[in-house]
Amino acid sequence: MKLYNYFRSSSSYRVRIACNLKGLQYEYLPIHLNRNGGEQFSEEFLSLNPQALVPVLDDGESRVSQSLAILEYLEETHPQTPLLPYASKDRAAVRELSQYIACEMHPLNNLRVLKFLTGTLGLDETQKQTWITHWLRTGLTALERQLSTSPTRGAFCFSDRPTIADCCFVPQAFNARRFGVDIAEYPTLATIERNCEALDAFRDAHPSRQPDTE
Amino acid sequence: MKLYNYFRSSSSYRVRIACNLKGLQYEYLPIHLNRNGGEQFSEEFLSLNPQALVPVLDDGESRVSQSLAILEYLEETHPQTPLLPYASKDRAAVRELSQYIACEMHPLNNLRVLKFLTGTLGLDETQKQTWITHWLRTGLTALERQLSTSPTRGAFCFSDRPTIADCCFVPQAFNARRFGVDIAEYPTLATIERNCEALDAFRDAHPSRQPDTE
Repeated sequence: MKLYNYFRSSSSYRVRIACNLKGLQYEYLPIHLNRNGGEQFSEEFLSLNPQALVPVLDDGESRVSQSLAILEYLEETHPQTPLLPYASKDRAAVRELSQYIACEMHPLNNLRVLKFLTGTLGLDETQKQTWITHWLRTGLTALERQLSTSPTRGAFCFSDRPTIADCCFVPQAFNARRFGVDIAEYPTLATIERNCEALDAFRDAHPSRQPDTE
Repeated sequence: MKLYNYFRSSSSYRVRIACNLKGLQYEYLPIHLNRNGGEQFSEEFLSLNPQALVPVLDDGESRVSQSLAILEYLEETHPQTPLLPYASKDRAAVRELSQYIACEMHPLNNLRVLKFLTGTLGLDETQKQTWITHWLRTGLTALERQLSTSPTRGAFCFSDRPTIADCCFVPQAFNARRFGVDIAEYPTLATIERNCEALDAFRDAHPSRQPDTE
């Protein structure tokens, strides 16, 4: 199994966690999102993924991009250590949290968006930080509100076992800290993050421990 | 089944299409995203969905938010007229397209983001349009590149039957047109849109035909 990814990419980080939780080995193929104008735009990479994004998983059978599509694919093809609960109602709860992070939080603060705001639109550093902080706080506040009152929360986002929601949450918490927002202000989220970080699967997937870490 | 939604919301539109394709009746409960500072921020609505977003589906058994979580939930609980293919490899292909639209395109041009850019960050109308057009063209170009070379494309995004990828694509095409980007410039996408629009399920879900249409 090959995983085209980038150490700091939040969506790559999600897939690394899931592979570790499921005990799946993979070959790490680094794609540098900044060097040479972005290696994801090379002809070679575009033929792998026309979306010009990491991560991409290639297991010899399929080539899949989009982290949540990859997580669902891994769940179907490697059901050991399930990352989704059994009942549809519970699966929906986990997917709802995952999609919130993937659709409402992460897309607003990723590299290409910040580059466009400061480059083409000419936002200064203060405006950029206002933008980043606003979306992080909006998202973390909603997640805290949802998880602090959730009857199905356990040590993790859902129950006492990690799910794809935790695979999405931990990279988002890492991003928040990197951009100066302290997760400790959100007590439920801080506890879940601590519980995740206690597991090797999460620790080994951290951006500071990858072959292309700078 | 109750669907809290808003006529112009792209993610609400996705769920309406899926319900129509599956022949599911629902009670339409309009939540006005602009009126009274946004009805999604009311205490009453927050108790339904702490994420303060539409759509929300309530079938008496579960209350689910996030359109893609809802589509997966409907697929599991009402498997008739499947909106995902059978094989994991194929399901991954459909989810990959859906996630691209839901995570890389839609979040950048939705109402709350545009309001923040022009409000708090003070972008003028020209800058706003530059932002909108850039992300629409980036996204549509990638989708056209992917679908025009896809061996699994048929009359629809995947094969000759509509899937959740089409449920995501058609509302995005509607959005593009609304913001002045002509889908006709993307021949593969234009054909798929035409094929979808030929079906009642898509036509009846259109923002111009809802109880709260203005």
